[in-house]
Parts: sequence; C-alpha cells; structure tokens
Amino acid sequence: MTHLTNSQVDISVDCVVFGFDGEQLKLLLIDQKLPETGNLSPEVLQIALPGDLMNAGESLDACAARVLKELTSLEGIYLKQFYAFGDPNRVSDLKDQEWLRSFRVNPERRVITVAYYSLVKMDDYVPQASSFASSAKWTDIQDVPELAFDHNDIADKAIAVLRQELTTKHIGFELLPEKFTLSQLQTLYETILDKKLDKRNFRKNIKKMDQVIPLDEKQQGVLHKPAQLFRFDRDANENVKEE
Amino acid sequence: MTHLTNSQVDISVDCVVFGFDGEQLKLLLIDQKLPETGNLSPEVLQIALPGDLMNAGESLDACAARVLKELTSLEGIYLKQFYAFGDPNRVSDLKDQEWLRSFRVNPERRVITVAYYSLVKMDDYVPQASSFASSAKWTDIQDVPELAFDHNDIADKAIAVLRQELTTKHIGFELLPEKFTLSQLQTLYETILDKKLDKRNFRKNIKKMDQVIPLDEKQQGVLHKPAQLFRFDRDANENVKEE
Repeated sequence: MTHLTNSQVDISVDCVVFGFDGEQLKLLLIDQKLPETGNLSPEVLQIALPGDLMNAGESLDACAARVLKELTSLEGIYLKQFYAFGDPNRVSDLKDQEWLRSFRVNPERRVITVAYYSLVKMDDYVPQASSFASSAKWTDIQDVPELAFDHNDIADKAIAVLRQELTTKHIGFELLPEKFTLSQLQTLYETILDKKLDKRNFRKNIKKMDQVIPLDEKQQGVLHKPAQLFRFDRDANENVKEE
Repeated sequence: MTHLTNSQVDISVDCVVFGFDGEQLKLLLIDQKLPETGNLSPEVLQIALPGDLMNAGESLDACAARVLKELTSLEGIYLKQFYAFGDPNRVSDLKDQEWLRSFRVNPERRVITVAYYSLVKMDDYVPQASSFASSAKWTDIQDVPELAFDHNDIADKAIAVLRQELTTKHIGFELLPEKFTLSQLQTLYETILDKKLDKRNFRKNIKKMDQVIPLDEKQQGVLHKPAQLFRFDRDANENVKEE
C-alpha cells in the first residue's frame, strides 16, 4: 500500500515576543508592507506577528531566529516552541489572500505554522522593521487589534502558556530588569494573570523563594520612598524556604 | 520581494500513547510491516511510534486520531499535541530510507512531524495492528528499543512533558483504573518520575488533595490485607485542604 503525500503544504514559523515596561505586558507586532511593484491597496495591509516561511534545510529553531531577525532586527533572544497550528483554512481568508498574492509564490497553499514565544527585557531590545515589515512595535496586550491569519489565536495560546509557566517555572523574571522592586514584580504577575493580587500574601510568598535575593540597594530617581531592589538567581536552591 | 517557498516538505503526526498496568509505565509501539509487493528484506523493518503523513484538508488533531486508529485500532482517546520535530535530516538516515522507499511517494522528502501524547487506562484499550503495522503492542518504558526515525527523541520528550504535568495537572489519574489504591498511585508516580518516594510523605500529600476521594470499599481478590480504594474527582475543588 502506498500512501498519499501532501505535496501542497508549506511550513512557517511565527514568533510571539513578550515584553514588560514596568506597567504593561507588551506584544511585538509588525505592520505589513506594500510590495515594491504591483498596485496593492494599502487597505489590505494588516498587523501581524513576526513570521515567515521556513527555508529548505533550515531547522525550526533556526527559522524562528532568522524570521525574527529579518523582520524586527531582534537577535540572540531565547525562543521557545509552544504549539503548531494547522487549521486547513488558516491562511485562506479573503482578508489575507490579497497580501499573500503579492508576497508568496503559492499564496493559496496550505501553511502549517509552528509558533514560538519569547520573553525579553524591553530595555535591551529595540525592534527595527525590515523585510516585508514596515514597522515593528510593542503593543499593550489589551490593545492588540485584529491580526492577520489566525495570529490572534496564536497570541492567545501564548498568553495561556505564559500564565501556566509563570507559576511553575518562574519565567516572569525574564521580563524584569536585572534589579527590580517587589511592586514591579507584583504588577508583572497581575498583568499576566489578569487579576489583582493581595499585596501582603504576594510578598509573603515571594520572600519564601530562595531565588529572590534582596539587595543592599534602593531605587534611584524616584521622588519619595525609594523601594528596595531585588535580583533573581536562577541557580539558587529552587526549594522554597521553610517557614 | 518574493519569498522562496519550501515545496519539498511533508507533514506527519506521531502519537506517544502511555499506559500503566499497575506496575510499569508502558508505551504503545508498532512493528513496521513488509509491503505486499517488492523484495524488501525483513531486516529493514523497525519498531516505531504510530505515525503517518497528514492528508490534504485534514487538521492536525484529526490526523492524529486517524493515524492512531488506522495503525492500532484505538479510537476515542484524548490526544494532546506537545511538540513539532523539524530536524532537516530526521527521516534521511539509511536505516529508515529503505522502508520509506516502499511506502512513500517521496521517500527522500523532508518531513516535519507534530507529536501528540495520550494517557489511557490500559484495560479499556486493546490495540490491534492494521495498515502498515504488523503488530501494535505495549512495551515497558525501560525496554524501549532503538526506534525508527527520531522516535526515541520524541518518546523522551513526551516523558519529560509527562513528568512536568504530573505535578501541575494531576494527569497521572488518567492512567489509573476508576478505583485505585494508594500503592498503585505511588507506583505510578515512582515509575513516571523514575525515583522512589517516601510512603509516609506521599500519602500525607495525597490526602491533602480534595480531588482524591476515599471510597467505602476495599480491593477484591487479593490474598491478605486488601487496601482501601480511592477515586479521583477532577471536578472537585482543586485547592489542597488546609492542614
């Protein structure tokens, strides 16, 4: 018995890059660009996650790094694969087809995308658009508009993964500056979990973590009552302190 | 600017199905079958995870369910996507190519596979081989041999995911019979985590879980000291009881 082959499939990678500015959780989005030739109307342009087709011979991880660099200039970022999206019609919507016809050899071809997420310290990474992105910018997570393709679904799934890993793997610290206050940490948790947390309980739980190390240093440049600074030591004992 | 397209890619799905017989964690594996025509030598046949190429117009989830049913007759199983494997050379090894040339239209074509895992109560699912599987059987996790393609990597990753979800999502109960003893539960945890657990601490922690409900019933058919039975209620309050 010989099996049918699915010759009409392309593979792409999409990147969900999160940042935190001390107050808001942000998502890195690109504006699609008009092609240099042809008469595509600016109305078909959409906002999207940075993503593109995989090249021949390229691994998925390498593709994610390349695509992010090409579209936003960000490099050296830790990207983690979290889900593959394979709805048979995920790129066939009319709103997406016009733009695809200008940029893809086989615009009607089915595309399976493998999604990656990343957490970056915003100060360290200033995105700059290139390739088919006309701009690359941070957008508040509450203000994410309708995106191209199924990119809203991909972003939603990434947030769900982020929420889950926040408590089990302490990944929130990746989004904070090297030295942070407990208020900044609490704001970050509240933003990702989308709920208010009790300040006293939150501090009690954080102080039980051996990895959160108080520094003999206070905030600079604030008007009154500078808060104490902390740093996170991933290599410290992961066990919480016994009370 | 027009982007290159990667026309030489196929998509497949592979399924890592775990079972537990009360003592051992098991993996469902298939034996590859000789094609009906041609003169393929039985030596090239390998043991593999149940998996196959995706059909045109098929979603990833539907493909996983179909492939598992076609190769092992198992159906109605909850399958959860956990990772996509895209090494450019993952099917080009000599050991795999001979068999592929008998069963695939484009045996040398790159294949990206999306992997799913499943946890089943072994008593409820008796696998039966069909399609290009000559047998489908449960294998002790310690006795998994060298598998076709990168299937050992896929199985290893699935076990890592299982370990992580065991503590955060209580998924172990999916592998146990409806009514179980605390010894069975502890053996399951020890098998998945691959380490001995302290009986007293384990029972103390389990008894704090509102979802583990003691029954007014004991084991049947054991020679002496039948143990108390418990059931797991996923809908019960997820919080652990305060001591």
